[in-house]
Amino acid sequence: MQVVFTLYPGITALDFVGPYQVLSNVPGVEVVLAAVEPGTVSDDNDLLHLRVDTAIADLSAPDMIVVPGGPVANVHRAAESPLVDWLASRHETTTWTTSVCTGALLLGAAGLLDGLRATTHWLSYDELASFGASPTEQRVVIDGRIATAAGVSAGIDLGLTIVGREWGDDMARAIQLGIEYDPQPPYDAGSPSKAPAPIVELVTGLLRA
Amino acid sequence: MQVVFTLYPGITALDFVGPYQVLSNVPGVEVVLAAVEPGTVSDDNDLLHLRVDTAIADLSAPDMIVVPGGPVANVHRAAESPLVDWLASRHETTTWTTSVCTGALLLGAAGLLDGLRATTHWLSYDELASFGASPTEQRVVIDGRIATAAGVSAGIDLGLTIVGREWGDDMARAIQLGIEYDPQPPYDAGSPSKAPAPIVELVTGLLRA
Repeated sequence: MQVVFTLYPGITALDFVGPYQVLSNVPGVEVVLAAVEPGTVSDDNDLLHLRVDTAIADLSAPDMIVVPGGPVANVHRAAESPLVDWLASRHETTTWTTSVCTGALLLGAAGLLDGLRATTHWLSYDELASFGASPTEQRVVIDGRIATAAGVSAGIDLGLTIVGREWGDDMARAIQLGIEYDPQPPYDAGSPSKAPAPIVELVTGLLRA
Repeated sequence: MQVVFTLYPGITALDFVGPYQVLSNVPGVEVVLAAVEPGTVSDDNDLLHLRVDTAIADLSAPDMIVVPGGPVANVHRAAESPLVDWLASRHETTTWTTSVCTGALLLGAAGLLDGLRATTHWLSYDELASFGASPTEQRVVIDGRIATAAGVSAGIDLGLTIVGREWGDDMARAIQLGIEYDPQPPYDAGSPSKAPAPIVELVTGLLRA
């Protein structure tokens, strides 16, 4: 099974590394990091610089695709790259086509979410709907072969969900134990329905700026 | 405030990226990725290749240090590098010296955990104790200026805990909301006390191999 992470300039690092840490632990999985142009891909802080050796064009039939997200301006730039056509064509033969956070907007741009239930970062529900998707306030949404995760950290839950479906519950449990994923956030502000209203307003302003 | 992530060959990516994603969101924080030798640092899968521009020797007084972990063989190699002496000397002037997962073993090797409560990946409690620490089964353990986190994914909780202490609860909540950290693991097997015994045995065997 070949799992391809599609990286592009300005991704959010944890969007990618969360599901990467889960899926790369499955024995026999071939993980490939790929980009439109091989070279260095930097994250949204321009602090983390990843070497990417593989061009997406050279990957003809990935079994699974994971599209990480990033600040919407960066996602919009990626939406004007050959990545979108590649997603549309390679999706035809995948077992799973997946996204984390605003990566869902790239699946949408590729025309893959029309009429489907899907999720994204909570600030991008409206844009997700513009692609014909029904934004669904869940951590991980599966509709057919497409699995979308909520914002940033939800990619870990996405990874474990797919591992459970594809390789069985015990494989997912073993990986969860290996990465000691027994989350205990010191605050309970991880979704707009849980965070205090002033915090929601603050973050909305910052992320939309 | 300068926050330094000490990278070394064979780190586990999420150990580093979890707290990185949290701390790099704090306005005004200078995040630095550093290694004994600048160049490319690869993760424990040899799949993720990070460019690191800064040598730890050039960082004389970081305010905060984050030491990620990795498979113990890789940590043991790092323990024979100049990183350990650097940790011992720079700790003298930090506000926070922290670790994720088996990164705690490097704090231990630097002599920083003697007589302290600390945590690490659940499989490494015995080795942690060999440095004079009292292994403590908590997600994040703070003893004085030293904060240690449990395995891999616990670095996210560490990051939010430190942000709350240093920049206030609302800053931590805002970052939690921004990264939509509202974890909903599809299984409840994230610690040895929660996972089924055969899974614990399996993972113990695999990680000790």
